[in-house]
Order: sequence, then structure tokens, then C-alpha cells
Amino acid sequence: MSTKYVYFFGNGEADGRGELKNLLGGKGANLAEMTAIGLPVPPGFTISTEVCTAFYKNDRNYPECLPEEVAANLRKIEAVIGNRFGDPANPLLVSVRSGARASMPGMMDTILNLGLNDDTVQGVIAKSGDARFAYDAYRRFVQMYSDVVLDVKKDIFEHQMDEVKAKRGIKLDTDLTADDLRQLVATFKATVLQQTGKPFPADPSEQLWGAIGAVFGSWMNQRAITYRRLNNIPADWGTAVSVQAMVFGNMGDDCATGVAFTRNPSTGEKIFYGEFLVNAQGEDVVAGIRTPQPVNKAEGDGILPSLEEVMPDCYAQLIGIQGVLEKHYRDMQDIEFTIEKGKLYMLQTRNGKRTAAAAVRVAVEMVKEGLISEKEAVLRVGPEQLDQLLHPSLDPKAKKEVIAKGLPASPGAASGEVVFSADEAESAAKLNRKVILVRVETSPEDIHGMNAAQGILTARGGMTSHAAVVARGMGKCCVAGCSEIKVDYKAQSFVARDGVVIKKGEVITLDGSSGEVIKGAVATVQTGLSGAFGELMVWADGFRRLKVRTNADTPHDAKVAREFGAEGIGLCRTEHMFFEADRIMAVREMILAADLDGRKLALAKILPMQKGDFLGIFREMKGLPVTIRLLDPPLHEFLPHTDAEIEGLAKSMQVPFATLKHKVESLHEFNPMLGHRGCRLGITYPEIYDMQVQAIMEAACELIKNEGYAIVPEIMIPLVAHVKELAVLRANAIRVCDEVIARYGVKVEYLIGTMIELPRAALTADQIATEAEFFSFGTNDLTQTTFGLSRDDAGRFLPFYVEKDLFEDDPFVALDQSGVGQLVEMGCVKGRATRPEIKLGICGEHGGEPSSVIFCHKIGLDYVSCSPFRVPIARLAAAHAALGGSEDRTK
Amino acid sequence: MSTKYVYFFGNGEADGRGELKNLLGGKGANLAEMTAIGLPVPPGFTISTEVCTAFYKNDRNYPECLPEEVAANLRKIEAVIGNRFGDPANPLLVSVRSGARASMPGMMDTILNLGLNDDTVQGVIAKSGDARFAYDAYRRFVQMYSDVVLDVKKDIFEHQMDEVKAKRGIKLDTDLTADDLRQLVATFKATVLQQTGKPFPADPSEQLWGAIGAVFGSWMNQRAITYRRLNNIPADWGTAVSVQAMVFGNMGDDCATGVAFTRNPSTGEKIFYGEFLVNAQGEDVVAGIRTPQPVNKAEGDGILPSLEEVMPDCYAQLIGIQGVLEKHYRDMQDIEFTIEKGKLYMLQTRNGKRTAAAAVRVAVEMVKEGLISEKEAVLRVGPEQLDQLLHPSLDPKAKKEVIAKGLPASPGAASGEVVFSADEAESAAKLNRKVILVRVETSPEDIHGMNAAQGILTARGGMTSHAAVVARGMGKCCVAGCSEIKVDYKAQSFVARDGVVIKKGEVITLDGSSGEVIKGAVATVQTGLSGAFGELMVWADGFRRLKVRTNADTPHDAKVAREFGAEGIGLCRTEHMFFEADRIMAVREMILAADLDGRKLALAKILPMQKGDFLGIFREMKGLPVTIRLLDPPLHEFLPHTDAEIEGLAKSMQVPFATLKHKVESLHEFNPMLGHRGCRLGITYPEIYDMQVQAIMEAACELIKNEGYAIVPEIMIPLVAHVKELAVLRANAIRVCDEVIARYGVKVEYLIGTMIELPRAALTADQIATEAEFFSFGTNDLTQTTFGLSRDDAGRFLPFYVEKDLFEDDPFVALDQSGVGQLVEMGCVKGRATRPEIKLGICGEHGGEPSSVIFCHKIGLDYVSCSPFRVPIARLAAAHAALGGSEDRTK
Repeated sequence: MSTKYVYFFGNGEADGRGELKNLLGGKGANLAEMTAIGLPVPPGFTISTEVCTAFYKNDRNYPECLPEEVAANLRKIEAVIGNRFGDPANPLLVSVRSGARASMPGMMDTILNLGLNDDTVQGVIAKSGDARFAYDAYRRFVQMYSDVVLDVKKDIFEHQMDEVKAKRGIKLDTDLTADDLRQLVATFKATVLQQTGKPFPADPSEQLWGAIGAVFGSWMNQRAITYRRLNNIPADWGTAVSVQAMVFGNMGDDCATGVAFTRNPSTGEKIFYGEFLVNAQGEDVVAGIRTPQPVNKAEGDGILPSLEEVMPDCYAQLIGIQGVLEKHYRDMQDIEFTIEKGKLYMLQTRNGKRTAAAAVRVAVEMVKEGLISEKEAVLRVGPEQLDQLLHPSLDPKAKKEVIAKGLPASPGAASGEVVFSADEAESAAKLNRKVILVRVETSPEDIHGMNAAQGILTARGGMTSHAAVVARGMGKCCVAGCSEIKVDYKAQSFVARDGVVIKKGEVITLDGSSGEVIKGAVATVQTGLSGAFGELMVWADGFRRLKVRTNADTPHDAKVAREFGAEGIGLCRTEHMFFEADRIMAVREMILAADLDGRKLALAKILPMQKGDFLGIFREMKGLPVTIRLLDPPLHEFLPHTDAEIEGLAKSMQVPFATLKHKVESLHEFNPMLGHRGCRLGITYPEIYDMQVQAIMEAACELIKNEGYAIVPEIMIPLVAHVKELAVLRANAIRVCDEVIARYGVKVEYLIGTMIELPRAALTADQIATEAEFFSFGTNDLTQTTFGLSRDDAGRFLPFYVEKDLFEDDPFVALDQSGVGQLVEMGCVKGRATRPEIKLGICGEHGGEPSSVIFCHKIGLDYVSCSPFRVPIARLAAAHAALGGSEDRTK
Repeated sequence: MSTKYVYFFGNGEADGRGELKNLLGGKGANLAEMTAIGLPVPPGFTISTEVCTAFYKNDRNYPECLPEEVAANLRKIEAVIGNRFGDPANPLLVSVRSGARASMPGMMDTILNLGLNDDTVQGVIAKSGDARFAYDAYRRFVQMYSDVVLDVKKDIFEHQMDEVKAKRGIKLDTDLTADDLRQLVATFKATVLQQTGKPFPADPSEQLWGAIGAVFGSWMNQRAITYRRLNNIPADWGTAVSVQAMVFGNMGDDCATGVAFTRNPSTGEKIFYGEFLVNAQGEDVVAGIRTPQPVNKAEGDGILPSLEEVMPDCYAQLIGIQGVLEKHYRDMQDIEFTIEKGKLYMLQTRNGKRTAAAAVRVAVEMVKEGLISEKEAVLRVGPEQLDQLLHPSLDPKAKKEVIAKGLPASPGAASGEVVFSADEAESAAKLNRKVILVRVETSPEDIHGMNAAQGILTARGGMTSHAAVVARGMGKCCVAGCSEIKVDYKAQSFVARDGVVIKKGEVITLDGSSGEVIKGAVATVQTGLSGAFGELMVWADGFRRLKVRTNADTPHDAKVAREFGAEGIGLCRTEHMFFEADRIMAVREMILAADLDGRKLALAKILPMQKGDFLGIFREMKGLPVTIRLLDPPLHEFLPHTDAEIEGLAKSMQVPFATLKHKVESLHEFNPMLGHRGCRLGITYPEIYDMQVQAIMEAACELIKNEGYAIVPEIMIPLVAHVKELAVLRANAIRVCDEVIARYGVKVEYLIGTMIELPRAALTADQIATEAEFFSFGTNDLTQTTFGLSRDDAGRFLPFYVEKDLFEDDPFVALDQSGVGQLVEMGCVKGRATRPEIKLGICGEHGGEPSSVIFCHKIGLDYVSCSPFRVPIARLAAAHAALGGSEDRTK
């Protein structure tokens, strides 16, 4: 039996099926599936990908039997549709489309209206009674075909059209008459002759083979080859070609075209919902020139008539079809239809895009309707979508004047008066005024103002700049790195796009999910955590294996995270505590002390405050595990930098300005990220870590002794590069812990571990595990060092990289699995080889990003830790991971 | 047959041999070997390491037969020496020493004079006729034994001695009389009784077992355990114990002690050479209180009599022995001897330490004497030693007043007047004045001054700071990161150790090999590349497989490196060319241009100059391979930073100061090392790389066309993290290359490759190799990112790390094989898997460090590249690698 190369679909029968994507391409398989389940799809056929492969194997020759198979299938189309290919009286027109397994840039896309020539156009005129329609279709065909198949440059035709419009004194294409268009067709064809030396093909069959050849040829064009190489797509996958009868919704008032959803895509309510236009093409609905009419009478405004009223038969048929579709695809569908001369055709159906709220509601209701299982429901909701539910968003119906765009650094939306300093933000908030804090960049000293503001806007800094990280932790909206604005503190204003000046006190709105900065106030909506959301999360928790912890530095954050379902703290940063107003002075004294005694004196002042912090956090977490990272940032981060600030500090410390200034300058670093920080501080100033360990253990002992808590503190030593660093610091910590335990006379278990955040730590994790009871992968810093990429400086080129697809994703958002992920996996394998019971987690920002969570599940981590507002996202992603769902980040 | 536990040596017979190090420890094996080859070694025995292992296996009990074996061997010593252990009339005294395979801190070291008690001391007095000598020996023994075996704190005894001295009004131990010492022995013993509750053991046998027990016990003390764990030494290696008869060179004028070398250790000349003292202990020779006499008459000054004259028999015996030793050990020996009552004893022989010049001469001459092979000669010279030969060094006999110590950043020594700016250095040099350039730190703008100076001293920056790297490249001496000095540019002076002030114009001397800064001028010596050196290098080149290239940015550097034997350029940095005075203006115009057109205009000015650079370098290298790295540093490095400089630039560029200042500020980066540099520049400003590639190819084409050169330029794209970056930049480069080649109409081969200098590049080297024809491992940056350690900032803690043994070596000096090396090896394996013929090299500073070169050989690199002055070192190290020599960095 010879191979079958061409697959027919039409009239309720199809040679192919949806699952034959590899053979028929995505497009061809879909058309076959729709036809097979009885939808009225315009008939057509698909030339399989095997032809493409054979074509290239056989020196660009088609299989011998192909012409015959194509001809036979054309006859079948004619039989169904009742027109004939090339018949001047009743011509069949077709579309030709490419379709590989996955859509691929660089491939030829679509040729419409193929089959038109000077003879057949007359048939179309006769049948439609509309010469303009017919010549416009002809003009478009010649233009498209010449560009794609004959390689004549598009702009020549555009130019010729512009000339005609200029001569006729009109501006819009739609103002061209039938005659104009007829003449343009002639002009275009003359151009083709001149450019290629050959006349434009009039024979529809020649046209068809030309188009088929162009599709297969495009598989090996440079752009497609490069794309495949970069994306590891084998060349022998090949592409298919689908040829389908054209139908027209714009041949008169008994024609129409429309789109519809089987449920409301905004709310998820189970109601058929859509729009259509009479006598129109699909693109007219999208273009928004005419106001579409509702499909349902009930959904309409009563002014424009609904499809239910205008074409009741077609409407009834559609209602039936949508029921079939939901049963068949078991998901909410987004459909496109065309009515030609009173006959309904389905052009496309696909799973409908929906808001987060709709996704949750549809999934939960479909479980109740018996359509899908709980497992499927959990997999139906994209974890990333939940972000919409957890933060207010801009009312999609509201108008907005965008004056700048920055990085979408922390989701949510907020309006408020502009202020330019943290202190102003705080005092305004005390008067119940809503403010947006605008800064060139923020520093730890701005935290009180960020806390008081509705949202934060910065001109500099990336997705993981100080402003971004803190805002996400607070669940507060933030647009960062908005280089379009120029902040002028002196003038108390900023200049935005097109020179728009915004002064202090003026109201702006931030959209932290899109990065847009908008002039004036825009209404926001908060979808809230509905009952359906709660139900879905309970199902999700039942499926997942990964634990989800949170990154929290304060009792407040800990509380929020617990409410979102966090199962412990994976990263409690102690340095944020150092910035609190009541202790920053003592911290500075410690840093600037001339000797060990001076440092110890200052540390003694900090000790009770740190202990208080830990008491609060331990109480809030009620016995859940808490990982505390010892001091990490370079000491100069705690110091003032301007002369005025140094002057102030010098006065209050009673040391000469020059001495203090010299000390501050001597702590300057060229690359602080790679400088004197993390455990390097603990090695050179062991007294700092000793104080912190003492505070942790005293807090634990007091709670165990006096309040009966069960606490196992996890003490985490940051930035270890070499096992010896950890060996020394662990021995120090054990000494302090045992001393405190002995003093309180209680039994306390504790763990000592490290962050794996440097490539060397991952590479030598087998050695490091000899001294570590747990690893927490600090993927923020690990990404910085593995890529050699500073988060704070990447803003100048990283967006360009992502835009140009040099990096698939911002590696600070989605974990770079092939590079950084290799180190994380290596760290796990080597760590477990040395110490099988080692606890493994991740505490970088990636811990709350779905594709990264799934990766963490795959490589066998015990938990992920993320900011409080991303805990539900991580929980759902972890469930997806356990259910084997691969994360579709486009959802 | 039962196991043998004790190994005797003495009287020309030995149970053991030198190769039994594992069984007898280093010390025991050496003593056995010396005895076996007929040297007059004081007799003794070694208790093997197997006893140690058995001791711990058997709950700290000795093998049953051990006491009997020890007793039998003691009898043997007595038989040889003619004294008896514990005999009051003629007592045998012994030393007890520990000895593992490798020397190990924390282990018990030595107990001398064991066997003394109130009875036997009388025998020593009688025999020596010197009561003071006898009681001093006794006093030392009690003190040492109590400390080491009985765990009585040393300082108690020190304190008691001080009390006696105070009472007697004397200052030196040597002023104590026999009676003082006798009373001190009694006081010490009373203290022991009081502290331990037990009398000091009088029984020599009890003393001996106490000492043996202390050695074995020390194997498991905390310090030894920690040391073993950190150095991966298994506990079951165990330690041996050597017990040896004491001999005394201080029992009268027929006694003596001395040290000697079989050849001159400074020059390598074949002449027996040594010093001795009559009636003295070994430590007296070392202490330098008395002036030693020459061994040889010929070597003496004619004032002090030589051993040859004083004790002609012993001298003749020594002359014979040194001949035996050189034949046996086949290397120059450093020996220690003692003459007791006219009888010569050899206490130790070992391979003698020697200067680089001596090492080369001895090795080459020994080949000619037929003692060793060429292969052995090559392995005898430590590659690192050659550094001494390639640079002038301080005259070792000169006196010097050290006023500060910094990092030995670039070897060599130089004196000159202090100047504080590059311009001053340059103008002074023009007047033929020798100057030392002193700066807080240097920047690329100081290069002309560094070039003009004799040496460079900086207060800040590490071993790979700008000053250090540039100075090494120039072969110029440099002391960097000398934090002891405070530079005051305003006062034109610096303050050094103890407040010494050095003003502009005063002369200082730098020792770049030790890091010392010396007041005034100190004479230097230049050993030079003698004939022997040349011979040795020819042999070395015959053995090595690794090619050795150089890092050179100028025709001058290229020439120097060629003279040192470089086989190509592995790294030609193009940015240094940008700093030349005649083009820095154009470079700044390019950077500060408002748009692409402005940049292109400025680049067009730079093009002919870059082309000129490449012409010069290609000509110098005469067809050898040249790898050229496209622009790497962030653009702000080329800009002025102070307001005054910006003002000047603004004037000459005719733009407003504020505009320029804003632009300069906007280019500021928090972590420039991880910022907008390397290929990221090529991606965002493709026109810069296009210009450079054009310059390279035009230079190559012109030389090929007009001068008949055979040039294959290797174009290297830096800082690639992701294969897509390289894919884009490679395509751009090919386009430019092909355009130039077509224009010149010549045939030129060229290679395009990348630096592997980010962890991600090594991790994904399989992908990157699809686009790279060669890899050059940039281990400087790779070390920075793998460790998360900035070279410029590490000065504050890295020296502490190295000193405390947290890092075995400075990872910027010797490649960190277990961390960074893992990535390099991974890069090689993955790169070759994709592209078997890929060319692999290394161009970090490690390319000239011997242990790193050996590593590069092992993992199969094709070449190493290093600064010109290290080329001979790399050549020799590569030979060592090929000969399987493991590099001993202590040599």
C-alpha cells in the first residue's frame, strides 16, 4: 500500500484527527477534528508533513503520486461546496496555509482567494453582485501571492496603491472604487512581469502549486533554519500545507461574521457570549470600525439587534454547536464563525483566553458539571494568573492616558498624589492621603515611605532592584526602572513621555502588572479570593509534594504569608531589621567602631532588639520551620553617603567629620555584589554573627521555656564559596548555641546550613554538605554570578535581550534551567550524595514563579520559598508539577 | 610470623629504607636511609605507624609484643653507642620525635635529652666535665617533657626562670649558673607534683613510654583532627615515633656542630661549602650569636680557622660523605653534622634549597656529570623560580629599612624618586630621572606614567588590580594594595609604618617579589639568562605538549614575548588601544554620541588607528596565531569622572557641561564587573564590533596581499553567557569579514570564537561550541564569578583568607582546581563533544602559574597564554606537566 499524502476534511467527514498534529501540523489537525465532530467547516485538505520530508530527501521533488492526490481532493471540495476550481461561472476559491507542529516564525503564513483570474473574477462578481468586493479580493490575492510566492517586494505595490489614492484625492483603501481596484490588479500584474520576466500565473492550478511550493520552500529559508537551530527543532519535522475553500461573510446582508465564547471570559459565568457583524469580514470585527452586535438577545443593550433576532436559524445552530464543543473539548471555547448566504461555517475553535477569575470559576464549575476531574481543574488554572486575583487591577473598561512605561516590578494597580520623598509619603499617609512615591531609585532608608505609599515608581533599577523586591514583599504595586521619566527632586516634579510634566500633588496611576504609568486616577477592580478559589486551592494542596514557605522578615509579613498558606519561613533576612530607625544608629556605631571592643559594645545594644524580632516571628509562625539568614549585605550599605548625612552622624557619634568620612570612603567597593559581604563578614568579624546566633537562640529558648513552643531554628550562613568558610562559622555558631542552651537549661534542636548562591558552592556541594544540614538555593545571586549579570545594572540591556529573544525569559524572573538550573541540580545531587537526609529548598525570587517551581519539583527539592503574595501561586504550581503539567507561560 | 613493629638503624645497618615513608614516617625513613648508605648516624629505632593504627583500633592499647621489641632495640642502641639507658655512670640519652607521612601541625614535635634524672645527670657531668651543660640539658628536658607529656602549662616554668633571673639580677638564660639550673630543676619538679598530683617520673623507662604515649595521643588531638579533615588525610595513616641516641657538639673543644651544602646554593658552583662552630649546639649556628667558621679552607677569609685545619680527620670524612650523598641522592644536599669528642655524626641530609640561578646550573651540570637525565634536570627546576632570573632582585647582602609591606604584585626590584602622578613620572623619565610612581590606585589613564616609572606602588587593589596586571604585563616591579601607607596627593607625600613620612623626590626601593617598601636606594642584582638557562629551556621545549602563547596588546609586548619563546598571542586586548592619547578623544565622542550616526562618525576616526595597531602586531608575530578580543570593558571606563575633566571634555567636544555630566552619570554602574560590557556592548552597539572586525581583517588582507604574510586572525567575542549572543555576533562578524575579503580580493582564513569566562558559558559549552571555532578560558573573570569575588575588592579579606588557610591559595594566582577548574574541564569536555576539532586555550593570569599550567595540560587544553615575562615559566611548567611532575609550589 502506498503512503497516503493528502488528508481530506469536509461535510462531516475527515481523514485526519486532532491528535495527528505531527502529520498534519497544528492547523490541519484542528480542521480535521472540527469536521469530524460534525461542525460545518468549509471543506479542504491537508498535504502532510511527510511530503515536506520526502521533498527535501528527494532533491526538492514531490512524491510522484502527489499531483493526482491533490487533484482528487480538489474534486472532493468542489463536490461539497458546489463550485469548481477555475470555473469562470462558479469559481471555487481557496486559502493555502502552512502548518508545522508548532508555529514557527519565518514560515510562509497564508494566501487567500487563490483561484482568481480575469475570468473567474467575473463569476465572483456575478455570484456576489458586488464588483468592488470581487476586485478587492483579486487585488489582495495578487499582492499577497506576488510577495510570498514570486518574491516581488511588497512596498512596490503599496507605493502603487498610494499613487492611485493620491491621484484620486482619497485617504482610505475603502474609498477605492471597483474600477480603481480593477486597474490596480492590472498594474500589479504588469509589475510582476517586469520584475520577474514572467506573467502573473492565470491558471488556478499553477497558482495552487506555486503556493504549495512556497510553503515547502519556506521550511528551508534562513530565518526558519536559524529559528529551528536556536530552538532545537529537527529539520525533519517538516511542515504541512492546508488548502481550504474560501467562504465570505461579506457577500451581502444574508452574510455575517462573528466571534463568541461558550462562557463569559471575564467572569466565567456559564452563558454563551459573543459579537458579530452583518456583511463583514473577520477583520472588520477585530478592527473596531463598526460596532459589533451581540449574539445573544439577553447580552445586548436592546439597541442593536442580536443574531438571535436577525438570523434565528443560524443562532439556534450555533447554540447547539457550542454545547457540542464544550462536551468535546471539555473547556470553554473561543469560536469564529462566518455566515455566507445564510449558511453557517465554523472557521476556528480553541480554548478561550480568560481572566484569572473566570479561569477559576470555569474550572471549579466544570468539575461540578461532571465535565472534568479535580486534577484537570487544578491544571486548568495557570498559577501565574492567580496574581490577578491577589492584587487590584485596573478596570479594563476605563480610559487611560499612558505617560510612561517601566518594568512591571510588582503587580497590582494604585492611584495617588505624587510625592518625592519617603518622609512626605509617611506624613501624607498619616493624613489619610493616598500617595505614589516617586524616586530615582529607593534604598533601605525609604522603607517607611514605601510602606505608607499606595505604589512606588522608580526611574532606575531592574526587576530585582531594591524597590521591586521590597514592593513585592509588601504586596504593593511598583513600576521600576522607568527610564522614560526624568525626576527632578529640586523642582519637585518629573518629566514623562512627550514632555508631560507631573508636579508634586498631581495624581497618577500605576499598573504594576504592565509597567504603565498613567496620568490621573483610573478605577481599579479587586476580584478577590472567591469561594471557587478556596476550593481549587484545597484540591491543589492535595496533589502537591513540594512544601511552600515564604520569605518574610517581619511578624507582619509572616502573618500575611500564613494566611496565604505558607508552611514556614524559608528566608528571614536579618539585615532589614538593622535598618529600623531605633537601631540603625547602633548598627552604624558597630560598623565604624575603631576596634573589636567598640564593635562588641555596639553589638550589645543591638542584641535585645534582634532577639525581639525573632520572638515576634517565631510566635507568628507557631512552631513552623523558620530559616534565618545571618547578616549578608556589605557594611557600607548601612552607612550614610552624602556629606550632610555623614556630618549628622559624626555629631551624634561625637567623632570628627573627617574621620567618619574617611572610614565611609574606605568601605567603598567597586563591585559590592562581589565584595566584602555574606559569610566573609562572619569570618572577618565573628562577633557580628555571634550576636545574631545568640539572639536567635535566646528567643527560641525563651519561647520554649516560657510559652511551650516547639521551635527548631534553622540558622543559615550566606555566600559560602568554600567548605572551610562554613566549617569555621558553623563551629562558632555551635559554640554560641550550646552556650545559650546551657544557660537556659532547655532542650532545643537547631539546624545549621547554608545558602548555595555562588557557582563554586554548587560545584563543591559534596564538600559543603559535610558541614551543612540544609541547603537553600539563593537563585537571585546564583543567577547574577552564573550569568555575570548585575540585577541593578542589567536594565540597560536585559529588556533588549528579552525583546530580541536572546534570552527566552528574564533569568531573574524565570529560572534559567539550562544554565543556573544545571548548578542547582548539581548542588542537589552532590549534597545528597554526601548527606542523604539534607534538607533542600530554594529562596530566590524564582521560588514563586511557576516554571521554576515545576523545575524545583522535578529535581527533588523539599520546598520552595517566595514572597507572601506569591505563596498561592507557588502552591498551585507545585500541584501542577506533581500532576506532571508542563507550565505554559503564555496562559 | 608476627608483625614487626620496631625498625632499628645504626652502625651502618638499618631495618628500614627511605621508601618506607608510609610505615616509618618521613623522619624515620630518612634516618634509616642515611644509616643504610653508610653514614655515621646516631643509632636509634622507629616505632611504625602500624602501632598507631593498632593502638586506636584496640582501645588505646599497644600490641602485646611492643614493650619487648622496644627494649630489645634500646639494647641495640646501647651496644652501638656504648652507653646504657639509665646508667648513672654512663647514661644513654635519647630524643623522641613524631613523624607521619607528611608533617602535620598539631602533632607533638620533639623531646630531647630523655633519660636524665638526678642520678644520670651525674654521669653526664662526669663525662662532659661540665655541670652547667648537664643541668641545662636536664632543665630543658623537664620543661619540655612537663609541657608536652604531662600537660603543665609552659608559662609557669618561664615565669619561674624569670624570677630566678630577676633575683640574680641577670637578663640572659646563658648567665644562669650550674647551681641556678640545678635549683630550677628542683623547682620545676615540685611544680609538676603540685599541678599533677604525681612526682615527675625519674625512671627513664617510664619517661620513654610517657613520651611515646604522648606522640600517639597527639594523633587524635583536636588540632590534628581538624587539620586532617580539612586536608583530606585519613586517620588511619597514623604516625610513627623515632627514638634516637643524643649526641652533643657542646661537650668540649673536641666537639663541634655545623651545616654544609654539597654545592654553592647561591650560584650552583660545584664546591663543598659550609660553616661550623666548635663546642656548640646546632641552634647556636643558626642563632648567629657567634660567628661561624668555614668548613673549607679555600672558602674562608683566612682569619677564622676552617674545619679542614681544626679537625682534618673529620673534614676528610665529611668530604667523602658529601660525595657519597650526591651520588646517592643525585641532587645537591644540605647536611647537618655534629662532632662529639672527635667523632663525626650526620644528623640530617636533605635536598638543599637554592636560588633559581643555582637550581638551573646544578641541574644542567649534573646532566653533564652523568648524574641525572635531561628529563630529571627539567623537573629539578621549579618553574616559579625562573621569575627570579627574569627580573632584577635586591642584593641579598644589602641592608634595608622596610617602611611598609604590600602585596607582591609584580616581581623585580627597583629604586627611584617618589612621584605621585603619571604625568610627573613621564616628565621625570624624559630627564632620565628614575622614579617610583605612588598612587592610591591606578587606572588606564596612568599607563604612560607606569611605563615611564621604574616601579609602581599602590595603596589599594589586589594581586589582579589594574596596577598589578599592567605592571606584570610590562615586566615592571609593583607593590600593590599596600594599606600601610596613606597617600596624601595634596601634601605630595605618603605616611608609612611608624609614621615615617616620604615626600615627593625622596628615594624608595620596591621589592615586587616580597611586597616590601624600603626607604632609600638598595642595590639590585640581575642574574640574567645564562647559557645553562637556555640549554634547560631547549630540553623543556622538547618534552612539552602544551603550546605557550602570550597576552600582548602592543607590537612591543609581542616582541618581548617572542624573545621569551611565545608561540603566538592568546589574548590581544583591543581596549588598551582605545586609551592611547591620539584616540581617546574619538573614543569618548563615540561613547557620548547622541545617536547611531554620531557613533559611526567617531568610529570612522578610530578605524585607521586600530588597523595600524593590528598591522604592527601581525608583523611582529610573523604568521604566528593572534587571538584578538573585541571590546570588553564597560564604556564608562573610558570617560572622565571628575568635574574638571568633564569640563575639559565638554569644551573640546563643544557640548554643554551639564549634558556631558548627565551622560557620564547615566553610565554609572553599581557592579561594572557584571554590567554592560563584553559582548553585551556588541549586541547593543553592533557598529563598534563591526569597526573592530573591519580593522582586523583589513590589516590581515593588506599584509597578505602586499607583504606575503600567512595570517589566520582569531576573532574572540568576550563575555558570552548564552549561545544566542554568539550566534548573532558571529553572523555580524562573518558579514564584515566577507565584505572586506571580497573588497581586497585575497584569500584569508579566519576563526571566530569566544572567551569562556562566565559559569553559564562553561555549563552550556556544548551549545556555545555550535557557534565557536575556539574557546579561550578567561579564568580571571571566571574565578570572580565562580567565587562571587571581585578582584578589586577582595583586598579587604582575601589576604586574611589565605593566611588563615581558608583558601589554600589566592584563587587569582593559582587556579582553583576543585571549583573553577571543574568548570574549565566541563567546558572542554562539552565543547569537544559538539566540535571535536575545537581549539582550546586559557588566557587568564593563571596561564603563567605552574600548578595551573599543569592542570591545563591534564585536562587537554591546546595552549596556555600568559604575560610575556611569564612565558619561560609556562614553558617549563608545561614540560613538567608532560613529564608527570606534580608542582610543588613551596620550591
